[in-house]
Amino acid sequence: MQDQATTTRMVASVVRDGERDELAVEEPLEIRVDGQALSVTMRTPGHDEELAIGFLIGEGLLRSPANAGLTDDFAANVIDVEGPLLRDPGERRFYTSSSCGVCGKGALEEVAVHAPPVEGGPTVARSLLAALPDRLRQPTFARTGGLHATGLFDSDGELLLVREDVGRHNAMDKVIGRAALDGLLPLGQGILCVSGRLSFELVQKAAVAGAPIMVAVGAPSSLAVELATDRKITLVGFARGGNANVYTVKERVTG
Amino acid sequence: MQDQATTTRMVASVVRDGERDELAVEEPLEIRVDGQALSVTMRTPGHDEELAIGFLIGEGLLRSPANAGLTDDFAANVIDVEGPLLRDPGERRFYTSSSCGVCGKGALEEVAVHAPPVEGGPTVARSLLAALPDRLRQPTFARTGGLHATGLFDSDGELLLVREDVGRHNAMDKVIGRAALDGLLPLGQGILCVSGRLSFELVQKAAVAGAPIMVAVGAPSSLAVELATDRKITLVGFARGGNANVYTVKERVTG
Repeated sequence: MQDQATTTRMVASVVRDGERDELAVEEPLEIRVDGQALSVTMRTPGHDEELAIGFLIGEGLLRSPANAGLTDDFAANVIDVEGPLLRDPGERRFYTSSSCGVCGKGALEEVAVHAPPVEGGPTVARSLLAALPDRLRQPTFARTGGLHATGLFDSDGELLLVREDVGRHNAMDKVIGRAALDGLLPLGQGILCVSGRLSFELVQKAAVAGAPIMVAVGAPSSLAVELATDRKITLVGFARGGNANVYTVKERVTG
Repeated sequence: MQDQATTTRMVASVVRDGERDELAVEEPLEIRVDGQALSVTMRTPGHDEELAIGFLIGEGLLRSPANAGLTDDFAANVIDVEGPLLRDPGERRFYTSSSCGVCGKGALEEVAVHAPPVEGGPTVARSLLAALPDRLRQPTFARTGGLHATGLFDSDGELLLVREDVGRHNAMDKVIGRAALDGLLPLGQGILCVSGRLSFELVQKAAVAGAPIMVAVGAPSSLAVELATDRKITLVGFARGGNANVYTVKERVTG
């Protein structure tokens, strides 16, 4: 359950058309490593430690939160993670490969460095996967209509964890960060479910976390499907109205 | 109208559950200025010149496309814009202000440097604004279900321009880039309409383009509303089912 203090940080009150209304809070967060600024993201406050750790893990910069000591100064919107990192974050970004210029193939190869193909994993009924978005409880979305969510489910479709954010990549980072803090990585038998669409970036984060199955309410992109095929992740889209499309690694889905 | 060659670049064909299906294409694009790499974005191919120019204008790095000479190498996914830029892109990012650490106020102040408050603009009926999302033709979304869209409308609600992309910020960049190429900036009497939600980043781009009114199918964030108030942009959300919420600068809306 989410505590009241966290919910308070996530929701802003405004007067709209003469009446009180509630909005999802968006504020910048600077992620530092050993005092050095690494990244600024616009996010919904409330789970900043999880966000920072999940972000660094998803980028292949950190493997576990064990060596991450955090200080969180709410007023400053700065979070400092204790290193060292696995590699220099300043080095060549993962989209580019010197041999091919900039291409999807280079992006796939870069993810492969940080994420082995996902072997094993559960076998699940298509009808269960189709039902997951309805089980994705979103307490703050219900009040604001303005948040993406990512949920972690077990193979029986039980919700283990849900996080919300104005940025869909942040919601995923928070879930992966929380899972890392709870010693749940690699996810192995877990199913990640997102409230929106599936981009390359979201599948990349799931791949590094070792998730065997990803479910989305919306459509996957072409590169999301290519990456899921390459990393052996079962990608499920348009999970709504009792149905769901399975794009990759169908062996984990029955029915 | 969008030509067939562009549509072909935007859609990928896959076999899914044993049948042909279509996906929105996602590929990296490297934006260079005078041969120097500035940014890599995951985008849907097809309007890369508009995307690059719109991105640079939205960041306050370029004022008009007059001094931008473009070469577009499809295979390499690299686009090169001719400078010079208005400032060094390496300098302090706009979220941070040395006096306050990282905060929304600093972000607002940075946008103010590049975008004067929007004065004047049309007065429009709420019912017309509520109807705009239904007029946002999305030819490629209809085939893939996987694209965000931004449209530029005139004050009578006529659609002037629409662009689609897997990234909502890219769709906005393409529209602003196209508008710049057509000599339509600042937008003055134009209305921008987006298929999703309104984040700080989208309002920032609209502010730099001088748009007086922004309409969204979804919710605005708290910082989107703060920025719109500060830059005198009329922000309209939840435009659906014949209704719409007006969050800021109501003087432009009747009914």
